Amino acid sequence: MTEEKTIEWFKEGEFGVSLMVDQTLIPYEYKKVKIKTVDEMFNAIKTMIVRGAPAIGIAGAHGAALAAIELIGENDFINKLYKKMDYINSSRPTAVNLSWAIKEQKEIVEKNKEKTKKEIIEALIQNAIKLENEDIEINKKIGDFGAELVPNGAGILTHCNAGALATVGYGTALGVIRSAYKKDKNIMVYADETRPRQQGARITTYELIRDGIPTTLITDGMCSYFMKKGMINFVVTGADRIAANGDTANKIGTSTIAIAAKFYGIPFYIAAPKSTIDMTIKTGDDIVIELRDEDEVKIINGKPICADGVRAINPSFDVTDHSLIKGIITEYGVFRPEELKQNFS
Amino acid sequence: MTEEKTIEWFKEGEFGVSLMVDQTLIPYEYKKVKIKTVDEMFNAIKTMIVRGAPAIGIAGAHGAALAAIELIGENDFINKLYKKMDYINSSRPTAVNLSWAIKEQKEIVEKNKEKTKKEIIEALIQNAIKLENEDIEINKKIGDFGAELVPNGAGILTHCNAGALATVGYGTALGVIRSAYKKDKNIMVYADETRPRQQGARITTYELIRDGIPTTLITDGMCSYFMKKGMINFVVTGADRIAANGDTANKIGTSTIAIAAKFYGIPFYIAAPKSTIDMTIKTGDDIVIELRDEDEVKIINGKPICADGVRAINPSFDVTDHSLIKGIITEYGVFRPEELKQNFS
Repeated sequence: MTEEKTIEWFKEGEFGVSLMVDQTLIPYEYKKVKIKTVDEMFNAIKTMIVRGAPAIGIAGAHGAALAAIELIGENDFINKLYKKMDYINSSRPTAVNLSWAIKEQKEIVEKNKEKTKKEIIEALIQNAIKLENEDIEINKKIGDFGAELVPNGAGILTHCNAGALATVGYGTALGVIRSAYKKDKNIMVYADETRPRQQGARITTYELIRDGIPTTLITDGMCSYFMKKGMINFVVTGADRIAANGDTANKIGTSTIAIAAKFYGIPFYIAAPKSTIDMTIKTGDDIVIELRDEDEVKIINGKPICADGVRAINPSFDVTDHSLIKGIITEYGVFRPEELKQNFS
Repeated sequence: MTEEKTIEWFKEGEFGVSLMVDQTLIPYEYKKVKIKTVDEMFNAIKTMIVRGAPAIGIAGAHGAALAAIELIGENDFINKLYKKMDYINSSRPTAVNLSWAIKEQKEIVEKNKEKTKKEIIEALIQNAIKLENEDIEINKKIGDFGAELVPNGAGILTHCNAGALATVGYGTALGVIRSAYKKDKNIMVYADETRPRQQGARITTYELIRDGIPTTLITDGMCSYFMKKGMINFVVTGADRIAANGDTANKIGTSTIAIAAKFYGIPFYIAAPKSTIDMTIKTGDDIVIELRDEDEVKIINGKPICADGVRAINPSFDVTDHSLIKGIITEYGVFRPEELKQNFS
């Protein structure tokens, strides 16, 4: 499973399409879908057919190529292309990887704007494929740096899914877990369900069970119980955006865990590529948190779980204060939050 | 709704039966069931047709009466009765109210053991009805003491359901909320979903919406997000067993919230009757935590939410350290954890 790309450019017709695992079907079905238009890509990101900050970044890079393909017959090509790229970028606000990938693709357009439309399209596709391949390499480096931190016998809590399915392959937080397991460390992974969308229950357990890694599903409120008992003694999650001071936006519930880890003296790590670090944002207070549909909280598998007429609020992310983070595991090594500025500015 | 008893002795036939709301059907259906035998009562407690520490206590008191009724034709009545009462007591281990009510009923038997079987049965029934009525009175006192602590404009987080449906009526934590609301305090209740069994989503929202109290459903991981924003600035939950030092067992997830509240400097209160305080237990380390079926974590509304073959662990309660508790709201007033010994020994 870690060898196959979650999302990749697929040669078909003149230029190709984006091919991705439909993550809304996991764990019931492992099925790939072809995304052929900008509107389809906007929808795939918005409805979380593709999710996970690094995977969303690649989706954005693919979307830029699809935009150029759609516009091949049009005048004012470059301006229209930028508009479509901005539209894709607006599909989800919190993960920086999306805007990062769009920015990368705009630089490709700038570099090639005197060339033919076809050449621009090919340049965007080649760059997207390069980003895909780099993502896997980066994750393996993150995994190897992170594995050094995992004690043998660790009980590792992870939240949401920062695995192969959140990236092109291997994963960030789950990359750390995969590398630790490969190095014959005896570990037990505690996968948080991660309500409302249950990415931990649905996707993380699916990935880890397929890889044969010992895994226990728990609910989001249980972390304190297992930390107090000493069964969880290490925490690693992914990230959607890391501010310059180390404050980190990640899936809702992450900061609750980080506070519990601090209370029990358990190390809490973030695993994320350099592209997730947003040096333009000083602190977490400036990170935009996406509010999603309240029905994600109120309805599970098509059935309401609450009284008619009650409201819900559904922030998709929260910000973990840098003071709660022991280290940020990147492809360049492990950094304390206060070390980001000198290393990534 | 607060006027009707969640569980009550119902006159029918020679002695009567236990009549209770089937809480597994809330919020979809409000239906009462008659429990006529000891086995039915054991099952009703175990499968959570009746749940909530104070309601389970009354169920135990009713169960004692049902046991005596079942044994009316038998020799060695008293010994057999005690055995059946012990059996009922074994249905759930964590809430002290069950063993407290069984103990209360054993005292009734002791006091009346020279009388006829019929008189013993009647004494058990009368005592159960007395406990029912006292429960509501106690909860109203808890509510009134607690309401004094609630600031106007409060955003109140509660976990699980400690409401009318967890008691005979009015509720403990929700009693505090009801009393605050009656005193015209402007409040917003944040009801934690409370996975795995979703008593917050299913039962608390049902109760509060019926009473017209402003309520927002959130998931268990979200507390830190809303505390950081200042939207939650007061926490009150019920309790299943309070140790002599104030350590408190309550629904799984409670201690995670209490840690977050401490981190943000938000007051965390327990609302519970004196009968929940177990002075025979020194600290929370000695409280037995019930482990329930892992399918409660893995399956929602009949559908698995995780990969095949993953294991889950399902502790039904956790223990909140007394250092995290600002006060315990009882029918005798509000006490700091360290004040329990001098007041309840």
